[in-house]
Amino acid sequence: MEYASFLRAHIERVVPLTDEEFEQVLPRFRPRTVSRRGLLIKSGDTVKSEFLVMDGLLKSFIYDEKGKEHILQFAMENWWVSDYAAFIAQDKGEIYVQALKTSVVLELSLSDRKELCVLVPKMYQFHGEKAFLGYVALQKRVLSMMKNSAKEKYELLLKQYPQLFQKVSKTLIAHYLGVSRETLSRLEKSHRS
Amino acid sequence: MEYASFLRAHIERVVPLTDEEFEQVLPRFRPRTVSRRGLLIKSGDTVKSEFLVMDGLLKSFIYDEKGKEHILQFAMENWWVSDYAAFIAQDKGEIYVQALKTSVVLELSLSDRKELCVLVPKMYQFHGEKAFLGYVALQKRVLSMMKNSAKEKYELLLKQYPQLFQKVSKTLIAHYLGVSRETLSRLEKSHRS
Repeated sequence: MEYASFLRAHIERVVPLTDEEFEQVLPRFRPRTVSRRGLLIKSGDTVKSEFLVMDGLLKSFIYDEKGKEHILQFAMENWWVSDYAAFIAQDKGEIYVQALKTSVVLELSLSDRKELCVLVPKMYQFHGEKAFLGYVALQKRVLSMMKNSAKEKYELLLKQYPQLFQKVSKTLIAHYLGVSRETLSRLEKSHRS
Repeated sequence: MEYASFLRAHIERVVPLTDEEFEQVLPRFRPRTVSRRGLLIKSGDTVKSEFLVMDGLLKSFIYDEKGKEHILQFAMENWWVSDYAAFIAQDKGEIYVQALKTSVVLELSLSDRKELCVLVPKMYQFHGEKAFLGYVALQKRVLSMMKNSAKEKYELLLKQYPQLFQKVSKTLIAHYLGVSRETLSRLEKSHRS
């Protein structure tokens, strides 16, 4: 799919744009292809951009002090991903964003995002809606991390993102849930039975 | 402080409004006083509104299956609080929002929020900015929950919200951090020494 039509459809799911408005929007986004295992962001980078996934699958994750991987987010088509604390501060981050298969993303810098909102104020509505939905999803995630057992977390993930289980290895699901590979197998068995 | 001037100053920290625009904004917000231990939202309620804190201090929290309290958020002056998953769906929630001392909040319903954005599009920018900052804060919280030790979580909270430690009991800090009261005392001692 041509990226212009993908981008326009993505934005217009929130707010319709005139052709003149979209002409302002389009040149601010830069398409990039990232191959499997390729990194869009790595810990220690100054994070200048956020990324809209047009095709493929990525994960954002950190390592703890013991070198254990913890997955913050998977990102599929139409999802946004970045190290947002570093992005908003234009500072060095701690998150890695890596492609799990060859992916095409549209890159938007913070300065382009801000300038574009001034030129096309409807983009405030677009970004606001995305941020609000992201906030709601993260509030659910925090509550789940605080109160749910591993079994409940597994079932919530299965309910929220059933397509993930076809796309992502068991090891990665375990890293997202914060359980061992063995625990995950046990959860799967008890879920099926 | 009169609530109109509080509200105007709160919004104008993000985006300036004309007098005509603020006349549209003001009647959508309803001031409410909630006394110590009073509940703005309780688990099982249909959540129609969000709340901007004008004065006082509140907490949002859940109980897990064992009846243990987990604090999602403290809310002080100029903070917003609700059960956002339930608010956005206008559905029943699982969160309690309770005043820790007598507080004054400004209540905004989802329908008023939406209508107001249509009438005064600058409010898209205002809510978008708030949601984005909230998203960034929650992303930090999730990362901290995933990777930090109790000691690191304690130090992050102290750095982010030093004023909380004067306002809130040790028991509540422990409920926020997800540690026992005894562990918190140990963390405090090791921090001071």
